[in-house]
Amino acid sequence: MLIRLGYDIRFDITAPVPVVALLKVHPSRRHDLREPDELRIEPYVAIDEYRDLFGNISTRFVAPAGSIRLFNSTLIEDSGLPDPICPDAREVPIAELPPETLRYLMGSRFCEVDLLSPAAVELFGNAPRGWGRVQAICDWVYSKVTFSYAHARPQRTALDVYTERIGVCRDFQHLAVTFCRALNIPARYTAGYLGDIGITLPPAPMDFSAWFEAYLEDRWWTFDARHNQQRIGRVLLATGLDATDAAITTSFGAAKLTQFTVVSDEIV
Amino acid sequence: MLIRLGYDIRFDITAPVPVVALLKVHPSRRHDLREPDELRIEPYVAIDEYRDLFGNISTRFVAPAGSIRLFNSTLIEDSGLPDPICPDAREVPIAELPPETLRYLMGSRFCEVDLLSPAAVELFGNAPRGWGRVQAICDWVYSKVTFSYAHARPQRTALDVYTERIGVCRDFQHLAVTFCRALNIPARYTAGYLGDIGITLPPAPMDFSAWFEAYLEDRWWTFDARHNQQRIGRVLLATGLDATDAAITTSFGAAKLTQFTVVSDEIV
Amino acid sequence: MLIRLGYDIRFDITAPVPVVALLKVHPSRRHDLREPDELRIEPYVAIDEYRDLFGNISTRFVAPAGSIRLFNSTLIEDSGLPDPICPDAREVPIAELPPETLRYLMGSRFCEVDLLSPAAVELFGNAPRGWGRVQAICDWVYSKVTFSYAHARPQRTALDVYTERIGVCRDFQHLAVTFCRALNIPARYTAGYLGDIGITLPPAPMDFSAWFEAYLEDRWWTFDARHNQQRIGRVLLATGLDATDAAITTSFGAAKLTQFTVVSDEIV
Amino acid sequence: MLIRLGYDIRFDITAPVPVVALLKVHPSRRHDLREPDELRIEPYVAIDEYRDLFGNISTRFVAPAGSIRLFNSTLIEDSGLPDPICPDAREVPIAELPPETLRYLMGSRFCEVDLLSPAAVELFGNAPRGWGRVQAICDWVYSKVTFSYAHARPQRTALDVYTERIGVCRDFQHLAVTFCRALNIPARYTAGYLGDIGITLPPAPMDFSAWFEAYLEDRWWTFDARHNQQRIGRVLLATGLDATDAAITTSFGAAKLTQFTVVSDEIV
Repeated sequence: MLIRLGYDIRFDITAPVPVVALLKVHPSRRHDLREPDELRIEPYVAIDEYRDLFGNISTRFVAPAGSIRLFNSTLIEDSGLPDPICPDAREVPIAELPPETLRYLMGSRFCEVDLLSPAAVELFGNAPRGWGRVQAICDWVYSKVTFSYAHARPQRTALDVYTERIGVCRDFQHLAVTFCRALNIPARYTAGYLGDIGITLPPAPMDFSAWFEAYLEDRWWTFDARHNQQRIGRVLLATGLDATDAAITTSFGAAKLTQFTVVSDEIV
Repeated sequence: MLIRLGYDIRFDITAPVPVVALLKVHPSRRHDLREPDELRIEPYVAIDEYRDLFGNISTRFVAPAGSIRLFNSTLIEDSGLPDPICPDAREVPIAELPPETLRYLMGSRFCEVDLLSPAAVELFGNAPRGWGRVQAICDWVYSKVTFSYAHARPQRTALDVYTERIGVCRDFQHLAVTFCRALNIPARYTAGYLGDIGITLPPAPMDFSAWFEAYLEDRWWTFDARHNQQRIGRVLLATGLDATDAAITTSFGAAKLTQFTVVSDEIV
Repeated sequence: MLIRLGYDIRFDITAPVPVVALLKVHPSRRHDLREPDELRIEPYVAIDEYRDLFGNISTRFVAPAGSIRLFNSTLIEDSGLPDPICPDAREVPIAELPPETLRYLMGSRFCEVDLLSPAAVELFGNAPRGWGRVQAICDWVYSKVTFSYAHARPQRTALDVYTERIGVCRDFQHLAVTFCRALNIPARYTAGYLGDIGITLPPAPMDFSAWFEAYLEDRWWTFDARHNQQRIGRVLLATGLDATDAAITTSFGAAKLTQFTVVSDEIV
Repeated sequence: MLIRLGYDIRFDITAPVPVVALLKVHPSRRHDLREPDELRIEPYVAIDEYRDLFGNISTRFVAPAGSIRLFNSTLIEDSGLPDPICPDAREVPIAELPPETLRYLMGSRFCEVDLLSPAAVELFGNAPRGWGRVQAICDWVYSKVTFSYAHARPQRTALDVYTERIGVCRDFQHLAVTFCRALNIPARYTAGYLGDIGITLPPAPMDFSAWFEAYLEDRWWTFDARHNQQRIGRVLLATGLDATDAAITTSFGAAKLTQFTVVSDEIV
């Protein structure tokens, strides 16, 4: 399957502001690209591209005063298969986890693992270990938290989600990630394209989406506490400890978003 | 100058517990070692050594039930000079910061950069930019926060330090790190040996210590909001976003500390 | 001056839900009423009226399933004068405060006096004591916090306002109240009618409003950190420790607000 | 049964500081007193005695610089019976609760009812209504929270107790009170004398104690999530929303506690 990816994001800027963007397809998927994946900026600005601490392709530039447009269109090949599931995938003892997964057991800005550890044990301590436990976490978060764009707020942590029971995409994933870590299952936050391929959704503007990955058996697996169903056509942009590391754009100063369009369509 | 380093840490363990230790001298100082730097464990357990996400040398093992002892003695050469100061060191614009420093502008488990950003601007926005601003932050934290071992608690964040005005070593550094980041100065948390060379202190048991580094001009510089004075003989063990990443030992289960001795003495 | 007061509030209820309403003019203003001040409810329900812990006239009833309407229209005489100001009003030493004001020095659900005490002292400790200090607090809150209906949330505390710097009416007052108490000035939260008499505002739907009172010299004085200007025609409904005690309606169960109209007009 | 009550509390004061003390037996027990219940202060200071917002007998005075001693000895008659239990006591519908109990359904400084409401429903929503539900709350808090004097801290709220699972007397009661309120059972915090009559305890210095009261059927009943057992000889000093209202002494300035002795002994 081929998927057309793209975005058109515009800001109004009053004074030059440094921006870091995570808008390029993740290295793990770059061999699937069938067209170049460039971050195009109008007006032209010099950009600096590098791998960040988590391996994402990060782009840094200074947005000048005035209107600025970030846009792109590219094409990627995809299996067309839904997220793999593997109910037999086992939890890996901490002593046997690959070292690079260990940081994903610990707390981060939006994931207070220490504070939610008792609740995690009480809620999921008796769930079957392995895949079933992560799925139990997703089921719980999905059923207990209400989605509401109107209640988005950038400071909301996993503990806030646990107490407020409301939030957007990232909030669902933060709470699920925190529960996983509290149970010694490495979990990381991810952001990317997620279209509506294969499902019927009420028509709505496309957006980037957040999901998460848990490490079981011998690899990272995709989970999504927000949608809690297998989906087709996820394309990873960035991964990290939490939304801090996978924000699509981070502006170090005032930048007023004036347009935001995302495309993620199956080419038929 | 030669410094004798060592520790003797003992735990009582009731059931086998995975442990991650950051007890080996940081790679940036390994060329200064004059004796091997081994983490010795009694009874013998298999260990796994690796570089973690932040470049620290991390040791992982499973502590068996019973008493376990982590100990070592090594020798390191040191300049014998106090922490360098450079009042002319400038702040680097975000657009020119080395990419690997950028993560240290963002929030982390114990450093809520977003929440303390307004206070940081109000308190230090008019301080001279560069070295003077970081020093102003250290002066403020040092004068406003009271040191108290009795008030240590592992969940305390920078915002808690700001409101409670009490804490231990790590708390001072967390608050200073958070203020630096809020002002777009990369800052990272560090832990290591810090003896009493060159200063007169009331006799007290040695401990590992925390300080922090701020990135100015073209390098990371040592700052210490807890002591707020130049010190001789710091030996770095680990660095990271905050105490989450630089804990001397992290136990994934119950482990009762029964002894804790640290040595950091000038050899004369 | 005569002011026409009224409201028309409608809820959709799926299952019977107990409601407590603070919709009757405060006893301190009841002698000014020129028409009866009844809480009218459609359909008819039995109501229970009592003075609450803070002296407000509270109405309790069980809203049956279906649509329910709370409405009223009454007439009140008002001095027509702006909020009194008294720049010479002094702070009263704690030892001389009337006992009934002492509780208003302490913390409450949305006013963490202990946590904001150091910041209060740093920000206002050098302000002139008395009226000028409360005014300095109002000026600070008014200038530092941005009003945004879109960012209302019921859990936001004074500390949250201090870190987020955004909020609605009640948030401004909570922060100001907390600062006053931290400086040993009794302060209480109030809710009531506030029209646009004597000022020019962009046309907007009327709402109830929150302000606060500080105890200086020998009485409670009106302050308003949200508008930070003298206003005409405030009519008090309820007062208490914070918004917990002065919520216009508190529903112990689900109640969907479907209409909300408030009237507070000068009769000419 | 006669119980000898008394205390000897000493502070060192560097500058005059206003103090509010709740050291007199609660009005509900004053008819049981067999000796005068005076708060004696050395050196002599003028005192001001009044009923506070919650009906407690509050004493206010200014402690002069130097050493100050608060002491007393009195005698009270007590039934000698353990705390009454009434497993059949029913929950009262909100619509039928006495108005003066309604405030005890709401949040307060240390009891974030709103934030812990979902957890309360999940943990206790299926418990038998009435006495059994309050007892289930006490059992849960008692079994999940670890007592530790070393971990006392004055800012800890019920949510903190829920996440940290450690605390002192007041912390246990705050969490239980919060759960009760979240389930629409009025609950208030209480402080008083609690000796070791009828039980075998390891010898330890006496202290005042906190417990709580829940409103069921037609009255307030004593519960104690810290000890979770019936006790003999509780003598109430103060009651209120939470520890804010029932602190034995509140100093508005620095006061160093140098001695603290409490007596509560059966006279045989």
